[in-house]
Amino acid sequence: MSVTNSSGPVRVTVWGEYRHEKSHDAVRKVYPDGMHTAIAKHLQKEPHFQVRTATLDESEHGLTSEVLQATDVLTWWGHMAHGEVQDAIVERVHRRVMEGMGLLVLHSAHFSKIFRKLMGTSCDLKWREANEKERIWIVAPGHPVAEGLPEYFELEHEEMYGEHFDIPAPDELVMVSWFEGGEVFRSGCCYQRGKGRVFYFRPGHETYPTYHDRHVIKVIANAVRWAAPTEGPKPLYGNRKPLEKIGD
Amino acid sequence: MSVTNSSGPVRVTVWGEYRHEKSHDAVRKVYPDGMHTAIAKHLQKEPHFQVRTATLDESEHGLTSEVLQATDVLTWWGHMAHGEVQDAIVERVHRRVMEGMGLLVLHSAHFSKIFRKLMGTSCDLKWREANEKERIWIVAPGHPVAEGLPEYFELEHEEMYGEHFDIPAPDELVMVSWFEGGEVFRSGCCYQRGKGRVFYFRPGHETYPTYHDRHVIKVIANAVRWAAPTEGPKPLYGNRKPLEKIGD
Amino acid sequence: MSVTNSSGPVRVTVWGEYRHEKSHDAVRKVYPDGMHTAIAKHLQKEPHFQVRTATLDESEHGLTSEVLQATDVLTWWGHMAHGEVQDAIVERVHRRVMEGMGLLVLHSAHFSKIFRKLMGTSCDLKWREANEKERIWIVAPGHPVAEGLPEYFELEHEEMYGEHFDIPAPDELVMVSWFEGGEVFRSGCCYQRGKGRVFYFRPGHETYPTYHDRHVIKVIANAVRWAAPTEGPKPLYGNRKPLEKIGD
Amino acid sequence: MSVTNSSGPVRVTVWGEYRHEKSHDAVRKVYPDGMHTAIAKHLQKEPHFQVRTATLDESEHGLTSEVLQATDVLTWWGHMAHGEVQDAIVERVHRRVMEGMGLLVLHSAHFSKIFRKLMGTSCDLKWREANEKERIWIVAPGHPVAEGLPEYFELEHEEMYGEHFDIPAPDELVMVSWFEGGEVFRSGCCYQRGKGRVFYFRPGHETYPTYHDRHVIKVIANAVRWAAPTEGPKPLYGNRKPLEKIGD
Repeated sequence: MSVTNSSGPVRVTVWGEYRHEKSHDAVRKVYPDGMHTAIAKHLQKEPHFQVRTATLDESEHGLTSEVLQATDVLTWWGHMAHGEVQDAIVERVHRRVMEGMGLLVLHSAHFSKIFRKLMGTSCDLKWREANEKERIWIVAPGHPVAEGLPEYFELEHEEMYGEHFDIPAPDELVMVSWFEGGEVFRSGCCYQRGKGRVFYFRPGHETYPTYHDRHVIKVIANAVRWAAPTEGPKPLYGNRKPLEKIGD
Repeated sequence: MSVTNSSGPVRVTVWGEYRHEKSHDAVRKVYPDGMHTAIAKHLQKEPHFQVRTATLDESEHGLTSEVLQATDVLTWWGHMAHGEVQDAIVERVHRRVMEGMGLLVLHSAHFSKIFRKLMGTSCDLKWREANEKERIWIVAPGHPVAEGLPEYFELEHEEMYGEHFDIPAPDELVMVSWFEGGEVFRSGCCYQRGKGRVFYFRPGHETYPTYHDRHVIKVIANAVRWAAPTEGPKPLYGNRKPLEKIGD
Repeated sequence: MSVTNSSGPVRVTVWGEYRHEKSHDAVRKVYPDGMHTAIAKHLQKEPHFQVRTATLDESEHGLTSEVLQATDVLTWWGHMAHGEVQDAIVERVHRRVMEGMGLLVLHSAHFSKIFRKLMGTSCDLKWREANEKERIWIVAPGHPVAEGLPEYFELEHEEMYGEHFDIPAPDELVMVSWFEGGEVFRSGCCYQRGKGRVFYFRPGHETYPTYHDRHVIKVIANAVRWAAPTEGPKPLYGNRKPLEKIGD
Repeated sequence: MSVTNSSGPVRVTVWGEYRHEKSHDAVRKVYPDGMHTAIAKHLQKEPHFQVRTATLDESEHGLTSEVLQATDVLTWWGHMAHGEVQDAIVERVHRRVMEGMGLLVLHSAHFSKIFRKLMGTSCDLKWREANEKERIWIVAPGHPVAEGLPEYFELEHEEMYGEHFDIPAPDELVMVSWFEGGEVFRSGCCYQRGKGRVFYFRPGHETYPTYHDRHVIKVIANAVRWAAPTEGPKPLYGNRKPLEKIGD
C-alpha cells in the first residue's frame, strides 16, 4: 500500500571499485560496463529512484561533498582495492551515514574501510570459489526488505561465504544462506548507525551474473527504500541548560 | 522522500473501549464522541489513510472477519473492560497480526488480552494519577516513527507509568519518558510478531486531551505507516520434501 | 575462570513427555528409560548440578508448586501429547519463568503450550524425517552457551527443521543449522521473558541418539548455567507515590 | 547459585587516565590515590577477582601485550586526555576484545578512542555539571549485571548525561537514568563485539565520590563477571575447502 511520507525521488549513488572489470576478461564478459553500471541500470527502472554512479578512479572516488549531500542511499561494492580508498573519503561517507544517509554494503565490501569502521569488528569470514549453489532463505518475512520475494531464492553459482561472520549481531536479520558445500551465512543484515541505516547483502561475486538476477535486484531495491532517510529530530549535543528548575 | 511501494490507501481501524466516555463526565468533556473518534478524525487528515472505527459494545466488538481482513493497521485503546473482550475475537486479531496486520497498542492497553498474548509476559508496570508533566525523549532519531518530531516533546498533564515495565526487550526502542515524580518509562516500543508489526505507545490517559496533542498524533500516524504490512513471502509450514537429493 | 556468584547447586528439573518411549520400540531401543532419564544422567555429571526428573503422567505432571519452587532451570521435551498438558500447570510454569526460573525448550517442544505462550507467535516450522545430516554452526562464539564447543558440530542423522521458524527474533542467536536436504534453521535461540531466561535448542528427535551426543549435552549444560536465575531486584508494580515532590 | 565454569580467578585491569587527580584539588580530595586505585580497592574485595591497575603516563599506558594477555576484563576511565592515548595501544586493546577480553567503559570514556572504534558511531551526548540527583532504574531485572541491586538507586550529586546518546542500540539495555533537570539516559548498555563483551556504565564524574557508592561498585563487579571471557570456539577464517562433496 501507499506509504508516501514526502515528495521527491530517492537519490541513489551506486559506487563501484571498477577494477576487476578492466583487468579480468571473465568479469568484463559478465559486466562489460562495470558492475556499478549494471546495478544502476536495474535500479533506474524502480519508480521514484534517481540513480547515478561513482567509481574509485574518479576524482575523490566520485564522492565529493556535493555528491554525498545529494545522496539518500549509497551502495558500495569493492574487493581488490579496499586499501586505495582514501581515509578522508571514508570519514566523509561515515559522517553522512551519521546524518542519515543509507548505506548498502555488497558482498566483498564486508572488508571495506567504511563497513569495518561502522561495525567496529574484524568483519572476517570464510570463503571459497567453487561455483556452488547458494539458497537464500528469508527468516523475517514481514520485513520491508523481503517485500515481493518468495520464501527462498537460489543462485546456481556463487562464491561461498561461511560463518563465523565477525559482525555485531544485526539489529534485524532478514536472510540466511545455505551453501552446497556445507556452510551457512547471515546474508541480509540490518543496522542503525547514527541516523543512518546500513544493510549488508552477501551475494555478488564478480565472475557471476548475480547483479542480473531478479531476486537480487529486488532485494537491493527494497533495501534502498528501507534505508532511505526520514526527516527525524536533529539532536542537540554538548553542554545544555536544565529543562527543569534545579533545587536551590 | 517518496517511498511508495504500491498503490492503495492504508486502511486503519481505530478500536476504542468507549466506556469511560459514557460513564465519566470528566472524560466526556475531553472526548465527547469518544477517544476513538478523536483519534480517527486526526488520522483521516493524513494522506492515503482510510480510517474507520470500532468499539467494544458493537457486535463482535466491531471486529468481524470482514473488518479485520480489510484492516492494514489496527489501533487499540482499552482500560476498564479488558476482561469483556471475547477470547474468540482476541484469537482473530492475533491471527491477523501473524498474517501481517499492524497493531498499535495505546496506553492502558498494555494490559489488554491481545498485547499480553503477543508479548508472553505480565506487561505490568507502575502508575500514578497526579497530573504530572511527561517529557518524551527520542532515543532513535533515525527511526521512521520519529519522523517530523523534535528531539523531545512534553505533555503537561499525564498519568505516570514507571519502570519496571514487564515486556520483552523491544526489537527497537524509539522513546523514553521522563516524569516529574521521578520515574522513567520505555514509551515507544517496536516489535515484529509473525508477519505483523506491533507498536506500543505510552501516553493517553482518558482524562487528558493527549489525543489532541499534535506530537502524539504525529507519532500515531508515523507508527501506522511503519506498521503497514508489506507483501512479503508466504512461508510454507509442515512436512516438506527435500530440495536437494539426499545421499544414498 | 571462576564466575561463582553465590553458593548452592543449580537445581535442574528435566521434564519429559515420556510417551513415545513406551509406545514405540524404535524409541525405547535408544532411550530404554526415557529421554528425560538420559538427559538427567548426563547433566548429573556436571559440577554443582542437582538434577531430578518429572513426566507427563505423574500427578500434576510432576510439576507441583513445591517442585517448581525448588527448580532453578526446567528443561522441556514434548511432542505427541502437547494437548494433554493441563492449562493450570502451564500457568504455573509461566509464573515461575516470570519470577526468574530458566526454561530450556527442546526440539518438538517448539509447539508446547508453554513455549507458544512465552513467544506469542505460532512457532510453526518446516520438518522432514529423512535421516539427514545436520551441521550446527556457532554464530556467536563469545556467548556462554557456546563454551567449549568447536566452531560447528554434526549430527549424522536427525529430523530436519527448516525456516521460516515463526518465533520473535531471538534476543541472542547462538546457532544456525545446515541440513543436507537444503534448509537452514535458527537452532539456538536466547530470550529474556520476565525475570526468566528461555533457550530454544533444536536437535532431539526421539528415534535418534541425539541426547547421547557429547556436543548436544554440552550445549544443554551450558544453557542451564546461562539460564540459572540471579538474585535481581524485585520490581514493585501498581499504584506508587511520587519519589520527588510534585509542584504545587 | 554456583555457576562456576572453570578454575582460576577473574583477572581485572583497572585503567585510569589519572590526570584530573593530579591537577585538580577537588578531585584529589575525593580520590587521593586516583580513581583507578579507588575502583581497584573495591573490586579486590570480590571473591575470585585478581586486580591490577594501569595508567596513561606509564610506559605503553601500562597496557603492554603481556598485561593485556593476562587480563580477562579491562575497565577504562578517561576524560581530558583521550587524544593522548596512542593509536597502536588502541589497536592492541581492540584485538584483545575481538579475542574475548571484556571491556567496561566508564562515564566520560564514552568519548575514548577504543569505545568509538568499537561502536562505529560518534558516541556524542548532552551533559551538564549542576550537582543534580541521578536516579538509575533497572529495566532488565533478570540480567546478571542487575544481581543484588534494588529496583533503582540514587546518586545525590552527579554530572548529567542526556539523550540522544549516539550509540548503536545496545544488545541488552539494563539501566535508564532519570535526572533532576529533566533528561533521561541509557546508562547501562551491553554489547558483544567479536568474542568480547563490552559494558558501558554512565556514572562517575571525577568531582563526586561515585566510585565509593556501594551500588555503583556492585554494578561494576557484576559487569566484570558478565564480561569475563568463556572458552568458546576459535572460528577459522579465510579460504576453506568444502565440507560436503560438491557436484562434478
